[in-house]
Amino acid sequence: MPQRNRREVVRFLVAARQCEIENLKHLLEAGRLVLSITGLVHRLQRERGASNLFLGSGGQCYGEQLQDYQDAATQAERELRARLGGWLEHTQCPHGCARFFARIATALHGLAGLPELREQVRARSIAVTAVMTGFNDLIRDLLAVVFEAADSAADPQISRALVALFNFMQGKELAGQERAIGAAGFSQGGFDDSLRQALLHRIDAQERSFEVFADFCDPQSRAAWQQVAASPHTSEVERLRRIACTRTLSGADGMETAQAWFAHTTHRIDAMKRVEEGLEAHLEGLCESRIEAAGSELAAADAPTAGFAALALAAAGPFATLFPDAQTEADGEARSPVLAAGIGAPLSGRSVMDLVHQQSRRLQAMEDELHAARKALAERKVIERAKALLMKHRGLSEDEAHRFLRQTTMNQNRRLAEVAESVVSMAEMLG
Amino acid sequence: MPQRNRREVVRFLVAARQCEIENLKHLLEAGRLVLSITGLVHRLQRERGASNLFLGSGGQCYGEQLQDYQDAATQAERELRARLGGWLEHTQCPHGCARFFARIATALHGLAGLPELREQVRARSIAVTAVMTGFNDLIRDLLAVVFEAADSAADPQISRALVALFNFMQGKELAGQERAIGAAGFSQGGFDDSLRQALLHRIDAQERSFEVFADFCDPQSRAAWQQVAASPHTSEVERLRRIACTRTLSGADGMETAQAWFAHTTHRIDAMKRVEEGLEAHLEGLCESRIEAAGSELAAADAPTAGFAALALAAAGPFATLFPDAQTEADGEARSPVLAAGIGAPLSGRSVMDLVHQQSRRLQAMEDELHAARKALAERKVIERAKALLMKHRGLSEDEAHRFLRQTTMNQNRRLAEVAESVVSMAEMLG
Repeated sequence: MPQRNRREVVRFLVAARQCEIENLKHLLEAGRLVLSITGLVHRLQRERGASNLFLGSGGQCYGEQLQDYQDAATQAERELRARLGGWLEHTQCPHGCARFFARIATALHGLAGLPELREQVRARSIAVTAVMTGFNDLIRDLLAVVFEAADSAADPQISRALVALFNFMQGKELAGQERAIGAAGFSQGGFDDSLRQALLHRIDAQERSFEVFADFCDPQSRAAWQQVAASPHTSEVERLRRIACTRTLSGADGMETAQAWFAHTTHRIDAMKRVEEGLEAHLEGLCESRIEAAGSELAAADAPTAGFAALALAAAGPFATLFPDAQTEADGEARSPVLAAGIGAPLSGRSVMDLVHQQSRRLQAMEDELHAARKALAERKVIERAKALLMKHRGLSEDEAHRFLRQTTMNQNRRLAEVAESVVSMAEMLG
Repeated sequence: MPQRNRREVVRFLVAARQCEIENLKHLLEAGRLVLSITGLVHRLQRERGASNLFLGSGGQCYGEQLQDYQDAATQAERELRARLGGWLEHTQCPHGCARFFARIATALHGLAGLPELREQVRARSIAVTAVMTGFNDLIRDLLAVVFEAADSAADPQISRALVALFNFMQGKELAGQERAIGAAGFSQGGFDDSLRQALLHRIDAQERSFEVFADFCDPQSRAAWQQVAASPHTSEVERLRRIACTRTLSGADGMETAQAWFAHTTHRIDAMKRVEEGLEAHLEGLCESRIEAAGSELAAADAPTAGFAALALAAAGPFATLFPDAQTEADGEARSPVLAAGIGAPLSGRSVMDLVHQQSRRLQAMEDELHAARKALAERKVIERAKALLMKHRGLSEDEAHRFLRQTTMNQNRRLAEVAESVVSMAEMLG
């Protein structure tokens, strides 16, 4: 093999590695952005609850707390915006960036409406349901940014951590919505059909989210979650859920049950917050260890490369530490044939072949590791899309669309994702 | 909504659009690269056939033709390398680029071995099977680049064209391998188990490839393909396939049948080449019309943006023509509220909301259009991965792995992709 041809092979191998590093840089930035969003979402959830109580009490209670919560949310929003400021300065266009940026734009658009919503709450010129919808939509748009970050992640470990975090945040948000729906139902003495359907939808979707979370989270978070699931508050919530679905309550009973419901669900959600903090710490730790490991490699990739020898060295040498897991597979072999041959030494055909094989094994190992996370995200995407299509074409509400999918799943004894896939394929065929 | 907040929303919308344009630029480059690869693969297929005949005739025949074919392939290789030269100068890192570059490196590595293979053919110091393996592997690596280009395409129409072209090339390559296997079997008077399995694998995989091609190709190509399928050569090939699977032939019969087999399969493959040319022309036309439509938009995106007004204008204005299909959905509405408001005029909350909604509708429409192409590629990927895992963990040959998957599919009455998915999931669980 002529030297010229060997060098061309190595140039493309190096380019591939540089792309990976660029993508990793973006992923780390996205991870930090997600952590800002987690903080903001939690504060908005608190503010939503306090806003409801403030309005429910005719402005008599929770006024001071509401102000504190609003200030905390505003502070979190400021931090998020500061972090976002850096994003537009990147000249690179990472994988999936168009959707990611579009999601951010949507979330920012939602945030821009927050001051007006708050004014209306203060003036008590808005209905509780409208406040709920306002906060729910905003939180949904913020969660969509987290989903997109997970969906474009090409690092197996960070990808898993993001899938776990997204699903946990989603589950916690659904638990918050369930709390509000239950409080409304119990305090009015019972649940009509549409309220019951809304409740069941939140319970069911919550379980699905927590299942996916448990499949992808770190062991500590899984253990922490099992503790939450085994707590007496969770059993109380289960008991009250059953009552909500089956019984009508008398007036006094209703208010008492509503208070019990609110107390237990709040305990449960607070416990969730602690699990979420563990997930955040895990993600943060992953990002930091990646940055540390990549430190010198990123610097090397940024520096103007001093000719081919440096490129070949970079291809085989320091970058290898970036992906310790995949590297172990190649442990039995000479680690860096180009490096061993000495800088500037001619490349043998054999050493180039080793490089090519190492790289493709490493990329395949990463693909394999990413497979499960990608599948979980793809299934979620297709389920959401099927719901949206059912809402559009059949004029269903979101709760009804959800029920339709669940019932079809049970009737046909198939997986939810399969049924959703059929709905999406049908919609494609019908145009 | 404060002006400052509105502007931030629009900045992210513009960034999203710029990412799309960057991705489109890369896709067009990848499309041109694919066209170079198509040409090279066809020439290598011809050279492979002539090499076999040259060796089979003890060097007596086809010597001159072989030289011509080698020269043509070398010329096509030179064109491909010239095109590749430009790729490394991109500073941007498009979606999926790491895998794409790694595939190119692998293909270049294969090409670098070609001169040695040719010397061995000339010196008749190599077995026919080794020549076959050499060319088959090289063509497989070149096809993998085409697959990767299709897999990272984010434009629905170009993506469909690439899926159709890849599957057609794959089917044609399998038809070429089938021709060689059949020629070997008939000329030796019959097919043993392993040769028959190899033949059945090529027939079966060919059909699958052509089915996917027909699902994604343009109408002209589909019509052209139906003509090939209805030709008398195809029926003759079918008849000879049946003989190959069921009968043993006497010596003289064998040679005669081998010649008939070679003639009919060659006619069929030549007809395929004409369909392939149609697919190439279609892809080229798509790339060119995209470039034309995008011309001024790309220039606008490259120019240093003159402040926010230009950005907002760019977000709503000329770029819109880039995606005419998705645009029609929004036809009922004001097309470019920012543009209508005049350059530099303040953005109303309403116009920003329109922009946000337009963008997310457009991205969703693109996602929907891409869904089927993505699914076809994902299924192919999981089938190939399942085969590789079966070969590795069970020590099967590729033909045996293929047969295992097909039999399981039939026994369990499931789709091939589903069975493959189970194999991959199992392998993940077993580590």
